Amino acid sequence: MKKVLIANRGEIAVRIIRACHELNIATVAIYSTADKLALHVQLADESICVGPADPQKSYLNIDNIVAAAVALGADAVHPGYGFLSENAEFTRRCEAQGLTFIGPSAKVIAQMGDKAAAREIMQAAGVPVIPGSPQGFTDQKIGARLAADIGYPVMLKAAAGGGGKGMRVITAAKQFNHEFQLAQSEAEKSFANGEMYLEKFIAQPRHIEIQIMGDTHGQVLTFGERDCSLQQNHQKMIEEAPSDVVDPATRKQMLATSITAAKAIHYVGAGTIEFLYSGPDQFYFMEMNTRVQVEHPITELITGQDIVALQLQIAAGQALPTTPPSIQGHALECRINARTPGLITGLHLPGGNGIRVDTALYQGYTVPSDYDAMIAKIIVYAVDRPTAIAKMRAAIDETVINGIQTNLDFLAELLMAPDYLADDINITFIDDFVAAQSRLQATDQL
Amino acid sequence: MKKVLIANRGEIAVRIIRACHELNIATVAIYSTADKLALHVQLADESICVGPADPQKSYLNIDNIVAAAVALGADAVHPGYGFLSENAEFTRRCEAQGLTFIGPSAKVIAQMGDKAAAREIMQAAGVPVIPGSPQGFTDQKIGARLAADIGYPVMLKAAAGGGGKGMRVITAAKQFNHEFQLAQSEAEKSFANGEMYLEKFIAQPRHIEIQIMGDTHGQVLTFGERDCSLQQNHQKMIEEAPSDVVDPATRKQMLATSITAAKAIHYVGAGTIEFLYSGPDQFYFMEMNTRVQVEHPITELITGQDIVALQLQIAAGQALPTTPPSIQGHALECRINARTPGLITGLHLPGGNGIRVDTALYQGYTVPSDYDAMIAKIIVYAVDRPTAIAKMRAAIDETVINGIQTNLDFLAELLMAPDYLADDINITFIDDFVAAQSRLQATDQL
Repeated sequence: MKKVLIANRGEIAVRIIRACHELNIATVAIYSTADKLALHVQLADESICVGPADPQKSYLNIDNIVAAAVALGADAVHPGYGFLSENAEFTRRCEAQGLTFIGPSAKVIAQMGDKAAAREIMQAAGVPVIPGSPQGFTDQKIGARLAADIGYPVMLKAAAGGGGKGMRVITAAKQFNHEFQLAQSEAEKSFANGEMYLEKFIAQPRHIEIQIMGDTHGQVLTFGERDCSLQQNHQKMIEEAPSDVVDPATRKQMLATSITAAKAIHYVGAGTIEFLYSGPDQFYFMEMNTRVQVEHPITELITGQDIVALQLQIAAGQALPTTPPSIQGHALECRINARTPGLITGLHLPGGNGIRVDTALYQGYTVPSDYDAMIAKIIVYAVDRPTAIAKMRAAIDETVINGIQTNLDFLAELLMAPDYLADDINITFIDDFVAAQSRLQATDQL
Repeated sequence: MKKVLIANRGEIAVRIIRACHELNIATVAIYSTADKLALHVQLADESICVGPADPQKSYLNIDNIVAAAVALGADAVHPGYGFLSENAEFTRRCEAQGLTFIGPSAKVIAQMGDKAAAREIMQAAGVPVIPGSPQGFTDQKIGARLAADIGYPVMLKAAAGGGGKGMRVITAAKQFNHEFQLAQSEAEKSFANGEMYLEKFIAQPRHIEIQIMGDTHGQVLTFGERDCSLQQNHQKMIEEAPSDVVDPATRKQMLATSITAAKAIHYVGAGTIEFLYSGPDQFYFMEMNTRVQVEHPITELITGQDIVALQLQIAAGQALPTTPPSIQGHALECRINARTPGLITGLHLPGGNGIRVDTALYQGYTVPSDYDAMIAKIIVYAVDRPTAIAKMRAAIDETVINGIQTNLDFLAELLMAPDYLADDINITFIDDFVAAQSRLQATDQL
């Protein structure tokens, strides 16, 4: 592998460019017209514009990106996360041009991208899944019967869904019809598709995910777990590794299950098996992400490994070691989000012992309004969870991003919440926290 | 410990402020009039000017610094490195005012600061020292007899010397008289003092140092070794940890010897025992540094420990754990030096996986001409030495510091030198490298 085109932007493009340079691989950046001054363009060896600001016409433009890779003589493509990273058609198109796609095969991407198919494959491989309807349905009566079979409370979801649209928790049979009608109508409006899906509702679960790496020689290793329960609008905000809550026996089961899952689909590359976790021995497959995750750095810190370098090496045919890396210490990641676009007039990022910042920001850069709000990741590493939290609080406190609004203050508040400090969290924690804040403010105004 | 005054500036002041904030300790920065816009002043909770740009009148001004600590209600003082960090008088003055000095006692600082006294103490404790003449001499015949006792090759030095003046390597007895006369005459001319000193000549040694930590309960731990052989004008430039050259048996001996040395003087705090190393079982005490070292971050990366936090905790009376930390991976540090002072008009520092930057630079900062040239430390961590070197090369390549001249290009050249890559280095490596470059340039001009 001599030259890699990075089919992405922002911090992950910078991350991949750095890994390539460390491995002595040349890099091609792609960019939209909104990104011509972006850091990833400046750091890459070559760069090429693939379209206008609208991501549909640039970072999601398969024709232009594949043509760019061919034109500039790249022999491989790294998709990063988001954009085309889980688009099987893009993978096929790369492969058709003789470009190495840095990730699993188009077939595996397609399988895991179809959430119902993925669930079936995993269930067949013996991976625990949340009890649910075997396939989608549109009929209310069928739904009510399925819900009774699964047992209340149940979660009703739009089959074509995402972002919480068409999603309802139903706690008793008598509410089913009413909620079904609301959810289906929402699904039809949002996705032009009224097909629904039902599953057992797991109350206050954690989101625990397992990082796996598979090579082209059939070896699959696990790199420990991450707790990504702190989410808002289904976007992770603070992640940590390892989880101090998962007991050793359950962890062992989850790691073994993840290897089973990955081997069942002959997985190659970096991947993540996401589980809902609700207590010892209680974990359920949610989905598999067939790409590098935003939160991969916390795993790198506790394992001492370089996940992006391993992706490149695996794509070049190298074999993984025979044993998984050992886990040391505790890592946290906070995602810094822009709440407004605009010019960065002043920037001071934290640094020093145990601090890692992954970002494409620089002083004088203008954050465009066209893309993801996540503009930086502050990642800390320390001997244990309390020390890591203290370090993160100091790091967030030190950070200065002038010219735009960010979630820095909100993160600082989260990092002081007593339940967070006590590690008593679940996937609704942030929503509950925000609701409690609002109530408090309403009381203050009385 | 509630409030610490940091009696320093630059990156080490920033480093200490961050450690304090992570431990919830308030900070007081001191600054000279040249440093009022310095980063350490901006990051500290409080700050106070202690004098003009001239370091003798500010950062070395014991009266003003102690008065500042008292005036602002600090209960402890962290001296950093350089400046007053190994000044026993400063320690005494802090102690007299009831301020906790974060470091060993004034007595230990004084003992280790007197290089001849330190050597005697260590020799008495059973620490190997370079065989040498017990005291200075002026008589040629006495010298010849001492040289024969020590065994050739020997190094003849001016007792009052420095900078290589009056220094000669003598490889055989028949050369002694001639070389003695030349060296003594040089010593008389340079220092108005013909007293000479002899020691065993160690050919092409490495500089290997052991990080130790001692607590107030009598416990001493070692944190592994650092290879600091890459020096220019006795200033370290690239450091690494661990050393791949030191064999396990010799390492074990060096670590045990360092504990013996530290316990012999009841050492408290962070300290470094510096050895000349010339092969398996061959290492000789040079000196002990009774403070945190510039290169402490590489030890933090391979041990997962926070040396500055430990300094603070030890000074507060906390006990060290009972076992030393384990060593994982490989770390390198490059010291970025300013070759000219001036305004930083553009700044891009590397980041991401395995990269740590300790600096007080920011875009818009003016590097003053009054202080140490070292303006940033780029530190990398990876699974092994070759990967760490590749990472450092990419990191140096990515770094942009506009507005002043630096040693970045020189570091990039060093990091490609075949002998460096083969780990075939010693304390004259950089001088030899520079000489070879000059010869090459001279040849080019022919």
